[in-house]
Amino acid sequence: MKTAAVITIGDEILIGQVTNTNAAFIGQKMSETGIEVARTVVVGDNYDGIMKVFREYFGQYDALLVTGGLGPTHDDITKKVVADFFGAKLVMDDRVLENVRDRLSKRNIPMKKVNEAQALVPEGCEVLMNHWGTAPGMLFEKEKKFFVVMPGVPHEMQNLMTEYVIPRIRAAGVSQVIKHRVLKTTGIAESSLFELLGSVDDLLDGRAKLAFLPSQFGVRLRITVKAGSEAEADEIANEIESKIRARAEKFIYSSGEVDLEEALANLLTEKRLTISVAESCTGGMIANRLTNISGSSSYFERGVVTYSNKSKTEVLRVPEELISRLGAVSEEVAAAMAEGVRKISNTDIGISTTGIAGPTGGTPDKPVGLVYIGLSDAGGTIVKKMVLPDQRLRFKERASQAALELVRRRVLGL
Amino acid sequence: MKTAAVITIGDEILIGQVTNTNAAFIGQKMSETGIEVARTVVVGDNYDGIMKVFREYFGQYDALLVTGGLGPTHDDITKKVVADFFGAKLVMDDRVLENVRDRLSKRNIPMKKVNEAQALVPEGCEVLMNHWGTAPGMLFEKEKKFFVVMPGVPHEMQNLMTEYVIPRIRAAGVSQVIKHRVLKTTGIAESSLFELLGSVDDLLDGRAKLAFLPSQFGVRLRITVKAGSEAEADEIANEIESKIRARAEKFIYSSGEVDLEEALANLLTEKRLTISVAESCTGGMIANRLTNISGSSSYFERGVVTYSNKSKTEVLRVPEELISRLGAVSEEVAAAMAEGVRKISNTDIGISTTGIAGPTGGTPDKPVGLVYIGLSDAGGTIVKKMVLPDQRLRFKERASQAALELVRRRVLGL
Repeated sequence: MKTAAVITIGDEILIGQVTNTNAAFIGQKMSETGIEVARTVVVGDNYDGIMKVFREYFGQYDALLVTGGLGPTHDDITKKVVADFFGAKLVMDDRVLENVRDRLSKRNIPMKKVNEAQALVPEGCEVLMNHWGTAPGMLFEKEKKFFVVMPGVPHEMQNLMTEYVIPRIRAAGVSQVIKHRVLKTTGIAESSLFELLGSVDDLLDGRAKLAFLPSQFGVRLRITVKAGSEAEADEIANEIESKIRARAEKFIYSSGEVDLEEALANLLTEKRLTISVAESCTGGMIANRLTNISGSSSYFERGVVTYSNKSKTEVLRVPEELISRLGAVSEEVAAAMAEGVRKISNTDIGISTTGIAGPTGGTPDKPVGLVYIGLSDAGGTIVKKMVLPDQRLRFKERASQAALELVRRRVLGL
Repeated sequence: MKTAAVITIGDEILIGQVTNTNAAFIGQKMSETGIEVARTVVVGDNYDGIMKVFREYFGQYDALLVTGGLGPTHDDITKKVVADFFGAKLVMDDRVLENVRDRLSKRNIPMKKVNEAQALVPEGCEVLMNHWGTAPGMLFEKEKKFFVVMPGVPHEMQNLMTEYVIPRIRAAGVSQVIKHRVLKTTGIAESSLFELLGSVDDLLDGRAKLAFLPSQFGVRLRITVKAGSEAEADEIANEIESKIRARAEKFIYSSGEVDLEEALANLLTEKRLTISVAESCTGGMIANRLTNISGSSSYFERGVVTYSNKSKTEVLRVPEELISRLGAVSEEVAAAMAEGVRKISNTDIGISTTGIAGPTGGTPDKPVGLVYIGLSDAGGTIVKKMVLPDQRLRFKERASQAALELVRRRVLGL
């Protein structure tokens, strides 16, 4: 097994109502397994379109991974097309039927006719029992090529991939190792980072690929190595990583797919530091990100979203006079918020944000995008001023990222 | 113009490091314009793979929309392939060069050689000036078929689509109207909703398509109508919508792509109600969602993320005795939190969450996934108990959705 293609079925993906997270998950798992995903294709819920894509793609790659269109309602037609494609009849599978009945009764959902039909499978396929939902997965093997069909509900597909599909692919034999090493940076522009790293050819020496992936959270660097063994791939990746670190260490907050909140969580846990958050313009996003990490109660004491001026005064004891004189969006108020939340929470670190998320509320002096980020700890209080003229949600994302990075660098003394 | 395909270029999409939000955006815009997106294809950053997909797809559809691989670094090769595909030389475009120079100087980023190369374009293409970034878009028209290339940075692509591409497609003539009408429901399972709506054939009468799209936020219903005119399409969609509403009104929180936080924002603004939030297990997600809406300061007074027991007592005045006797995850504490935050904020409504997000911290009595949602208003206090045994992030999403829906139904008396 060497190459694969992913086929996603669903009008909702084509017309952009739903983003294709399933193809992303499958791509990631396959790549980790050493299989190269050469293409991803999306087609709508119509018989001819699905049949056409099956005909075009089956046989071209070692594995074809299909998701979507297996639900209980009338618009789910994938199973019918698959059966016709392989010239197979749909037959009732008793184990699947029992699973459907079980699952529904546990959740107190009555068994409907449409649910019964979910237990029909094409004759001759290998049934992948779905213990996380009602639609089973199906696997066909023809001339050493795999054809796998899974439901489109993300966690059901994910479990089927992990429990059945990946082990089956491994068992069929994978001939190469592909390793991706990711270094996540923040606080530096893509072209500046590119120049900072110097000659890419020198860096890679023809033994790997390097990609730059910018987003509102920073630039990710991805090193990709293909090798004959895990050890060889790791050695090459390690060598390139240390060359990159030698030039850009300060900006790198994690290696691997670890988000900044998780990197910070590890750091705070390791240093036994506690934190509290006072947010205005980020509206709870920092607290939300910090509490996305399991175990966050050991370092996250509390957060306050002091949206109104009154709440800044009442909860954080920011002097009313300061707000009326300098405005809520000011360096001094950011400092007072960070100090206030640290004091009332009795934590090692207090952070704060105050700014203008927009799209309204800007003035010539204080434009949309202006934000002050405060940090208070035993060493004193610092405030960082930034202008992030962006759409509201992205503004919140950038500001929360900058706040978390401010803490990371402060704790590490960078 | 009738049909289109979307081609996304980038290893990061194939291997699942980045989800394909660009294809989603383009699909949505095209569909709104009356163009049917028949396929979406993703290929990696390699010359042969990109050339192959151009050859396969160009000419098959009226428009081919390509994104990605136009950045300043070595791994961006799309422009070279495009030039070769059309047999064109790359030439320097002075207007683009000036734009690149301008943009960088405004952000105090030094102009590098790699930035200069961004001003090279294939001879004979129509340059789509990128006022939101440094890589220009390119449009080719051959035998009435469009070939459009745009950068992969989402907001740059979005602006190019809206400002140049869609108007050019409209000008070329669009022969049909496609209307999607979305009704968003929450608090009902997909199969139960399907049964509640009765016969889909009766509902649609052959004049539209209906899709069921489940997620952790609820089930979306999508009505799709193709018609000769806007008026005709609207009339059909209206008729089907009212039939659906007659059967499932209570569960529908919005029509159109409005999220629950926005629907609730509109409702609170209309009724002139203010709200405050006390979160434990949702960790700031409810505050974050409410403040994603522009203008939220008019109804959102404050939020507190009382993660520690101490903060529940200090900030919300939840009696210590209650917590030690019944535990922080209990009906009584949820009620006290909602009442407490309402009182300290002096708002019309106070809501609260307390539960076990997991994956650790569960007990036989109080399993992972248990959550109590409290609501306090002038009419009294109610608490809703739910068990949402799910992965941590999805638990937070489901719990925050249930909390917002509890407010919506309370305000509307449903």
